[in-house]
Amino acid sequence: MTYYTFSEDQLRHFSQSVFKYMGCSNEHANLATDVLIKSDLRGIDSHGLARLSGYVRLWEKDRINTKPNIQIVHQTPTTTTLDGDAGLGLVVAPSAIKLAMEKAKVYGSGWVSVRNSNHFGIAAYHTLLAAEQDMIGLAMTNASPLVAPTFANERLLGTNPICYAFPAGKYPPVVIDMATSAAANGKLEIAQRIGKAVPQGWIQDAQGESSTDPHELKVGGALLPLGSDPDHGSHKGFGLSASVDILSAVLSGANYGPWVPPFVSFLEPPSDPVGKGIGHFFGAMRIDGFRPTNEFKHHMDHWIERFKSARTITKEQKVVIPGEPEYRQEQKRKVQGIPLIDAVVQDLQKLAQKLNLTPLKH
Amino acid sequence: MTYYTFSEDQLRHFSQSVFKYMGCSNEHANLATDVLIKSDLRGIDSHGLARLSGYVRLWEKDRINTKPNIQIVHQTPTTTTLDGDAGLGLVVAPSAIKLAMEKAKVYGSGWVSVRNSNHFGIAAYHTLLAAEQDMIGLAMTNASPLVAPTFANERLLGTNPICYAFPAGKYPPVVIDMATSAAANGKLEIAQRIGKAVPQGWIQDAQGESSTDPHELKVGGALLPLGSDPDHGSHKGFGLSASVDILSAVLSGANYGPWVPPFVSFLEPPSDPVGKGIGHFFGAMRIDGFRPTNEFKHHMDHWIERFKSARTITKEQKVVIPGEPEYRQEQKRKVQGIPLIDAVVQDLQKLAQKLNLTPLKH
Repeated sequence: MTYYTFSEDQLRHFSQSVFKYMGCSNEHANLATDVLIKSDLRGIDSHGLARLSGYVRLWEKDRINTKPNIQIVHQTPTTTTLDGDAGLGLVVAPSAIKLAMEKAKVYGSGWVSVRNSNHFGIAAYHTLLAAEQDMIGLAMTNASPLVAPTFANERLLGTNPICYAFPAGKYPPVVIDMATSAAANGKLEIAQRIGKAVPQGWIQDAQGESSTDPHELKVGGALLPLGSDPDHGSHKGFGLSASVDILSAVLSGANYGPWVPPFVSFLEPPSDPVGKGIGHFFGAMRIDGFRPTNEFKHHMDHWIERFKSARTITKEQKVVIPGEPEYRQEQKRKVQGIPLIDAVVQDLQKLAQKLNLTPLKH
Repeated sequence: MTYYTFSEDQLRHFSQSVFKYMGCSNEHANLATDVLIKSDLRGIDSHGLARLSGYVRLWEKDRINTKPNIQIVHQTPTTTTLDGDAGLGLVVAPSAIKLAMEKAKVYGSGWVSVRNSNHFGIAAYHTLLAAEQDMIGLAMTNASPLVAPTFANERLLGTNPICYAFPAGKYPPVVIDMATSAAANGKLEIAQRIGKAVPQGWIQDAQGESSTDPHELKVGGALLPLGSDPDHGSHKGFGLSASVDILSAVLSGANYGPWVPPFVSFLEPPSDPVGKGIGHFFGAMRIDGFRPTNEFKHHMDHWIERFKSARTITKEQKVVIPGEPEYRQEQKRKVQGIPLIDAVVQDLQKLAQKLNLTPLKH
């Protein structure tokens, strides 16, 4: 695969110009860009600028409102339901967790369920906002149906990720950011692109049989929940995914289950919605609402050190502290720049041409 | 296997007499019993009266304080750290979630991290207290180390369960109650007892190789995280388990990771504790902190109906709504009585003899 490397600033500038073209305010264009760039910096290439043209296509179809009036529709001192007014999830989600953090500052914790939103980028962007303020951050979102619950032969749930961020002391925050399916959809897309078989336990075919052909997903197959099959606890992956769906959508009044609108412009949203847009759920808890922050951080560091130094099966592969590889990637790419694969660069250049914006130089 | 069936009242009376013998107040004896009986009623036989003699043995070793002074050590309007004073988790945990619920009544949500506690029975008992009051309940606990993180050849985490309860309208609450390991320890114990091989992906042996021999766990092996192996997302099970450990113990000042004291009296707690006892974490959020309760329940019913009626792989096996089988079992056993296997009955009769209490009649 051919890569081209760009500086963070270069990509930032390009992305901002696209969002501004779509009618975003400067503030929103910068924020949406910040979420995408964070993803590319952290090495989550599937959720960064690779998605930019997809957001444009949804906007062209009038499915994204670039001038949203994000509104509180219901609240108590520590809980809120927020209506994203069909805005970019990249803008709605940071607003939502910041609201949770404001509540946490006053009352110890804050919880925000969001309806009428769109794809929110990487969950870790949002939870890290909380961790930077010495809070525990939680983010989750439902997504369009790709996953079959245990025993089902029908896609009823998205890959519905859950993300926690825990601040540490001398180490980077512990960030757990995971799809509740056995494999993230991005991994399947890569296998589809290069025509490679996937492990048993990632997908089932249209008859509900286990399959290793990544193309089955395009002809009636489905992703499997974390756990893969009933013997290995796939009901647990289903349960986790269900909890994300309920907290994000049944609680807020968004669409849930098979009604969640697709992220891609070539698929139409269901004609019989049960709510508004897609749903997210966010939480923030002040560390010092439980114990002095320095004590917590001291023990987090100790926790990290114990797991990092665990006896391992092979000498080469140590235990991976969640969030550490992404943190290291971010430090590296901030200096060395962000590599984009050829296909993404071409996609961005076409976008520049279509919108009459300055193309990327490489 | 031989079963003997007892009425709920009969077992309740017996259990209360045991806890009173241990020095519990009437109130605490009744509460601890209520947690155990709920487990037997719901068909979670591993966590019911089968554990009673184990609690007694821990108490005999002075590792359970039956007259605990359960105290708030730190708090904000919606967050608390509670010290269980080495009390029965069966007593400490309900106190903790009730405290979370009190906070939720006033501020919308409440969150309690607990240190210095012991095994808390089934997590669903605690979350259902919240669901009955039209709140979303969350409960988790760390546990003594049985699970090897991805790539590790060492037990560093417990089966660390997570439980959510969501109230519904005409249906029973959706209750997700799951160990974050591929298989719960109880399932392994059953396989050990009957000498049956377990599926690949549940355990690894002392060399870190996948094994199907349930006895490997007794000679240096370990349970595997949900996901079973790196290809199937075992880092996600590890991440979930880590989040439980951090919220329950690093946040409260309990023991975490390999320092969590064992539930069994024949194993000594580590001599170099990093905190007090084991840790739990509880949350309660008022539904009407987000949207009117009747609206939420209406959509929960709709969610349940959609998943119950999903197209399935076989005609016979429908999608299981989390918590529904346990609810049905409870309705049935309340009427027909609670069956206990011979080995448990013998264990309880021996206990009666030892403590000079009236034995069970069957």
